Amino acid sequence: MSIFSSVLRFCGRNVRISRQISSCLSVSSQVLNLSKQSAIFAHVSYEKSMMIKGFSKGLSTHIERQPHSEDFFLRQLFDRESCTYTYLLADAYSKDAVLIDPVIELIERDLEVVGELGLNIRYALSTHMHSDHTKAVQKLKKYLPECKTAISAASGAIADILVRHGDIIHFGRHNLEVRATPGHTNCCVTYVCHDQGVAFTGDTLLIRGCGRTDFDQGDPETLYNSIYNQIFSLPNKLRLYPGHDYRGRTVTTVYEEKRYNPRLTKSREEFIQIMKTLNFAHATDNQMEHSLPESFK
Amino acid sequence: MSIFSSVLRFCGRNVRISRQISSCLSVSSQVLNLSKQSAIFAHVSYEKSMMIKGFSKGLSTHIERQPHSEDFFLRQLFDRESCTYTYLLADAYSKDAVLIDPVIELIERDLEVVGELGLNIRYALSTHMHSDHTKAVQKLKKYLPECKTAISAASGAIADILVRHGDIIHFGRHNLEVRATPGHTNCCVTYVCHDQGVAFTGDTLLIRGCGRTDFDQGDPETLYNSIYNQIFSLPNKLRLYPGHDYRGRTVTTVYEEKRYNPRLTKSREEFIQIMKTLNFAHATDNQMEHSLPESFK
Repeated sequence: MSIFSSVLRFCGRNVRISRQISSCLSVSSQVLNLSKQSAIFAHVSYEKSMMIKGFSKGLSTHIERQPHSEDFFLRQLFDRESCTYTYLLADAYSKDAVLIDPVIELIERDLEVVGELGLNIRYALSTHMHSDHTKAVQKLKKYLPECKTAISAASGAIADILVRHGDIIHFGRHNLEVRATPGHTNCCVTYVCHDQGVAFTGDTLLIRGCGRTDFDQGDPETLYNSIYNQIFSLPNKLRLYPGHDYRGRTVTTVYEEKRYNPRLTKSREEFIQIMKTLNFAHATDNQMEHSLPESFK
Repeated sequence: MSIFSSVLRFCGRNVRISRQISSCLSVSSQVLNLSKQSAIFAHVSYEKSMMIKGFSKGLSTHIERQPHSEDFFLRQLFDRESCTYTYLLADAYSKDAVLIDPVIELIERDLEVVGELGLNIRYALSTHMHSDHTKAVQKLKKYLPECKTAISAASGAIADILVRHGDIIHFGRHNLEVRATPGHTNCCVTYVCHDQGVAFTGDTLLIRGCGRTDFDQGDPETLYNSIYNQIFSLPNKLRLYPGHDYRGRTVTTVYEEKRYNPRLTKSREEFIQIMKTLNFAHATDNQMEHSLPESFK
């Protein structure tokens, strides 16, 4: 085993690049500490301890993925203004589809894709009550009246289907399990497609972050428990698709968030303290309204 | 076979939703004409003629995909400001990786992901000469000096590797074929990963659009030939990842662009005429500079 390291200057800081190459295992690892913040995420000591213990082969879980089956269709769509992600899922053969968290300003775009691909939207799913999604779903229903709207029963909203923890939503041969993940709001749910190794976490878990908890329904401890019990209990390689991202990142995994989420790598008590002292200022968060039940029909 | 249709009002227009369900084939198709523009894209008559001819089963090609293998890693990254996509590809076992078209303002984000996932960037690939990418690659080289920069030899730029049509770039067990696709600039290339059914088209082919051709190196006829000969000749289900998208769309396929691209569903002569009369005004396009060869080292 050869060990070499070099020191580079990055953004005015000394950055240490250390690389250990294990020729017998043909596995190499490179950890870049780019800034004080990312140094926390990178968990260099964890890397080293894993190597020393001979767990180098396990490092492939960093980027391991469960491939999708040929008949599973997933398209991610983005709203630049609110940094919101919308997801279109379908069975490639039956063409039954679901649309998760559409945005009102971009309904035309979404319907254009749906029409071009010849999909039949069976359900418009909301991960939680969000004024923008509410209006979008109402608009969608006008043009696709056979589409069923669905939101958590805990929302108190009016919708075609009020889902509860453990419910299964079918589209073609595929399905989504509903997992209640309150904490950001009372009604937050995560939709999990186990067969394809993907989950849609809404505002519960974001990439290297999580939903704010300073609204009237927000509760840091509840959010921590939801994430640990309902999301981090899923397989490491399961892909997580968030409701928003403000840095152009599109997807993460259970493994990555367990390892690198700066809030969730902390203890429950530290997490609660972090959430209580965060200074929320992101403009797009102002668009959220959670206090009043709304109509999703 | 039962046929039913209904008329809905959409955006102040009468919109016709026609659905034909072939019970014997268990295939349904729904075509939404959302506006005059999308009505052109939707090719309703094509759908009908395909059905009449009994090709209904072929409609699944709308959304058919070649699944990725378990050891193939692909992450799409987005820059909201310039609407630019950057792509990180890797072999999940060897961790050899390539970064396509990084953006200078987001190099820290990209390196953070690379560091966290323990990847070794072997090559920083450019799809064409673009001032923003040039600076990004130069910055990347400072912190990852072993990474090789690559751009088309036709660019006249200085880089570690000057690629030519037909070259193969290896990362772990995966590889990318270089296809020269000039027309937007002389040096545009498309990187194709045949095994995984994906290609990175840069500014040559965009989702329902294409790169502008009014710069000094631009030529509509050359662009048309590049797209038809080098991209549309690929399998229908091959996923195409563009260099930009301004409407939050993330990916398309050869099939979709052949069917729905408003410029490329025209004849060569009509395409040339469209490109010559387009009024380019998008702010981000002003960031492009193609006239002077630059250093990618």
